[in-house]
Amino acid sequence: MFLQLDDTGPRYLQLARALKQAILDGRCAPGSRLPATRSLARELDVSRNTALAAYAQLADEGLIDGRSGSGCYVAAFAATSKRSADAKAHAPARAIALSRRGRRMQAVYDRAIPGRQHRGLRYNLQYGLPMTNPQLASAWRRALNQAAAHVQTDYPDPQGLPELRAQICEYLARRRGINAMPDDVLIVNGTQQAFALAADVLLDAGDRMLLEDPHYQGARQVFAARGAAIRTCRVDAEGLIASALPRDARTRLAVVTPSHQFPTGAVLSLPRRMQLLDWAQRRRCWLIEDDYDGEFRYGARPLAALKSLDRAGRVLYVGSFSKVIFPALRLGYMVLPPALRDAFVAAKWLTDRGSTAIEQSALALLIGSGAFERHLRRAANTLRARRAALLNALRRNAGAAVEVADSSAGMHILAWLPRTSHAQAQMLVARARARGVGVYLVAPYCHKPLPRPGLLLGYADLPPADLQTAVRILAECLSQITAA
Amino acid sequence: MFLQLDDTGPRYLQLARALKQAILDGRCAPGSRLPATRSLARELDVSRNTALAAYAQLADEGLIDGRSGSGCYVAAFAATSKRSADAKAHAPARAIALSRRGRRMQAVYDRAIPGRQHRGLRYNLQYGLPMTNPQLASAWRRALNQAAAHVQTDYPDPQGLPELRAQICEYLARRRGINAMPDDVLIVNGTQQAFALAADVLLDAGDRMLLEDPHYQGARQVFAARGAAIRTCRVDAEGLIASALPRDARTRLAVVTPSHQFPTGAVLSLPRRMQLLDWAQRRRCWLIEDDYDGEFRYGARPLAALKSLDRAGRVLYVGSFSKVIFPALRLGYMVLPPALRDAFVAAKWLTDRGSTAIEQSALALLIGSGAFERHLRRAANTLRARRAALLNALRRNAGAAVEVADSSAGMHILAWLPRTSHAQAQMLVARARARGVGVYLVAPYCHKPLPRPGLLLGYADLPPADLQTAVRILAECLSQITAA
Repeated sequence: MFLQLDDTGPRYLQLARALKQAILDGRCAPGSRLPATRSLARELDVSRNTALAAYAQLADEGLIDGRSGSGCYVAAFAATSKRSADAKAHAPARAIALSRRGRRMQAVYDRAIPGRQHRGLRYNLQYGLPMTNPQLASAWRRALNQAAAHVQTDYPDPQGLPELRAQICEYLARRRGINAMPDDVLIVNGTQQAFALAADVLLDAGDRMLLEDPHYQGARQVFAARGAAIRTCRVDAEGLIASALPRDARTRLAVVTPSHQFPTGAVLSLPRRMQLLDWAQRRRCWLIEDDYDGEFRYGARPLAALKSLDRAGRVLYVGSFSKVIFPALRLGYMVLPPALRDAFVAAKWLTDRGSTAIEQSALALLIGSGAFERHLRRAANTLRARRAALLNALRRNAGAAVEVADSSAGMHILAWLPRTSHAQAQMLVARARARGVGVYLVAPYCHKPLPRPGLLLGYADLPPADLQTAVRILAECLSQITAA
Repeated sequence: MFLQLDDTGPRYLQLARALKQAILDGRCAPGSRLPATRSLARELDVSRNTALAAYAQLADEGLIDGRSGSGCYVAAFAATSKRSADAKAHAPARAIALSRRGRRMQAVYDRAIPGRQHRGLRYNLQYGLPMTNPQLASAWRRALNQAAAHVQTDYPDPQGLPELRAQICEYLARRRGINAMPDDVLIVNGTQQAFALAADVLLDAGDRMLLEDPHYQGARQVFAARGAAIRTCRVDAEGLIASALPRDARTRLAVVTPSHQFPTGAVLSLPRRMQLLDWAQRRRCWLIEDDYDGEFRYGARPLAALKSLDRAGRVLYVGSFSKVIFPALRLGYMVLPPALRDAFVAAKWLTDRGSTAIEQSALALLIGSGAFERHLRRAANTLRARRAALLNALRRNAGAAVEVADSSAGMHILAWLPRTSHAQAQMLVARARARGVGVYLVAPYCHKPLPRPGLLLGYADLPPADLQTAVRILAECLSQITAA
């Protein structure tokens, strides 16, 4: 009998696995007698005890019968398995049966995520790369250690740790002008889960929802995967063009980025905020306010959130700690209108029973101690310097070949290329990459074709000198391409 | 002007919020002039600087216009808001528009979760309460601390940390007889998320799925919330009655607990395992093997998992660390057939981008160091003693009034009450609770009415002496009720 041991784990289990394989393959027929342990041991050069233990294991699993006196026999059940294996071998290869949603999910994921493939570049100006911050990392470690020492180990509250929800309310009152009670807050595993829960609770397949154009791809993907009928609405320098919102009342949900439109960086003006709220209220449409980086503003005080103007309870506010602490921390939160709270808590509970308790507790400690906001202030200073370095370098090296969209917030800029064709812009990205500089087209984030190409330039994780070098290289590539 | 400050945060923000409220309420009409800062400050007994800062904040937010010379005016936009607020006040109270799925989720959640209300009892024999383990807690803390020091802070791999997936494969080979590659493993936030992802990827609303009867309520709820048509199949002392499985081919998914049927504790016999696999393969039905506490066995070696017998790639194996480490740790895993892997990774990515990296890394360290399996062995010894104490106490105090279902695994037993009516059993639960003992009926876990009542008695978190006292009290309540 040919038995191949796999060299993983104890010898007797290797032997048991190999025998089992032979039995399930049908190589040892049901009812047939297995070799005596002594001869098997000799054949395979293992101890007899190993062979005995392997047989005992198979007997425990019911795969073989018999005592050592009269020998061991393959149990009769195995016939079933043999038939099945044959059936499989001869069955035509049919498509795997997924649900419609499962197929949509797979299709959405198959499309490449822009930028991911660029990791490992010397100067990667990828949007969304976090600012590396050793001080924050050690503050987080201390908070985590402290949290692990006292946290409850039973199932967490599916809505989120009460002390974290309370800290978030105080933080939102201080920084975003939102008056929320801890009961209005739901802790989620990042913005993505907030979108996924909203899609579950608010949309059936075929229901209409609205995105800004351009928009964050991750939002489109999750709603598309749920079968929503996606419409878009244009943005300009004042953000979403409220007068271009659809007039009919069929939109059930709209995702907006009023603090800092993604990716253009426009800040939604107050009259438009009021128009948008009015539009939503008249149509009973829900608004998700994705305040993904409203924290980092360079100029005026942060604008209050759309949520703080919402008198009719139509706004679901979504905040995330991924962009401000680090993406591997999968924690964010929603501030929900009272009418939606129970349904969202139910959805969260059914999805994963609640977010991880120790990290929630650590985050509550980090906010409560003031360390979180100290970090935000420090990070804003660093980011301001990096942003200035990037803007200056673009002005100096690229001049009128690059037009930066006006933006006073965030962790990236949008640079239009008014003298460059779309084909040239693609060449630019490729050539810059070949020289170690990662830059990214804005096109994948746009629904409608753009009149001119643009680049998203993230500056959060590169010091000023690196940004200057990167821009110099980028400008060289650009002038070579446009001169050609 | 009446302004109520809320005593939260800086004074100027309190004032800005109160003014904003008045503007949005329509109490300060659009275009109307606001009081001069000096008189407002006097009226409210705040400094003039506070009033100036509040006005500056409102001007930043665009709610008021004007220079200090000619006074400040409420911006014109507010008319819109006023109209909206009126419209709302007069609109008929209509039902909140949730999706069908949202309504189902809310309905499922509204039904009380059995046992939750019993927290705080002196002797709580609740199923699913973890064994408190200070040694494990400090091992976990150390691992977490170590992980936090070196873990990547970028977005995690949505499929899960490669080193954790590798550790899980070795662990499964050692303990559950499963030969899996790290690529077959998906890290999820506990068993609940595994069910939720399977519902998304494999079932559309109306699709048929199968549960054992009785079964874990959490599974039914998540599939019901997704609109699945749920059928059940009976179990007996050998587990799921494979001959009673539906003959037609419309079942797309079945959730089974072969190692330790929940809640009866039956172990699925090998012939039935083979029958079940054969049934699933012929009907192209997926099987979820929920191996929720297959780890704790008192007697024979652990049986190999159903997955290890699966030749046709129909079994999705689900393991959890919640029951063996602690429930607040929201980490579990699936071992997927290759044909389903991409769709499940896509679903996980769309749901929350991946599980939290630090805890994944800590878990990999805990398994890799051997501490996890040392804990399992120690815990199994403790649980064995507790189980024996519970069984002995039942025999001594309740005699033939209680029949324990034969089970050699897990963290709870199922005790039938052959001489008790259902009404009496409900009285028993209430009376025991009044005396500080939490016991739980098995009925909520059953689809079909039971011929006789039964109790689920969890013993993981109570030392033997407490279990003895609890059983004594329970037996007293029982004899009082049946004698009455």
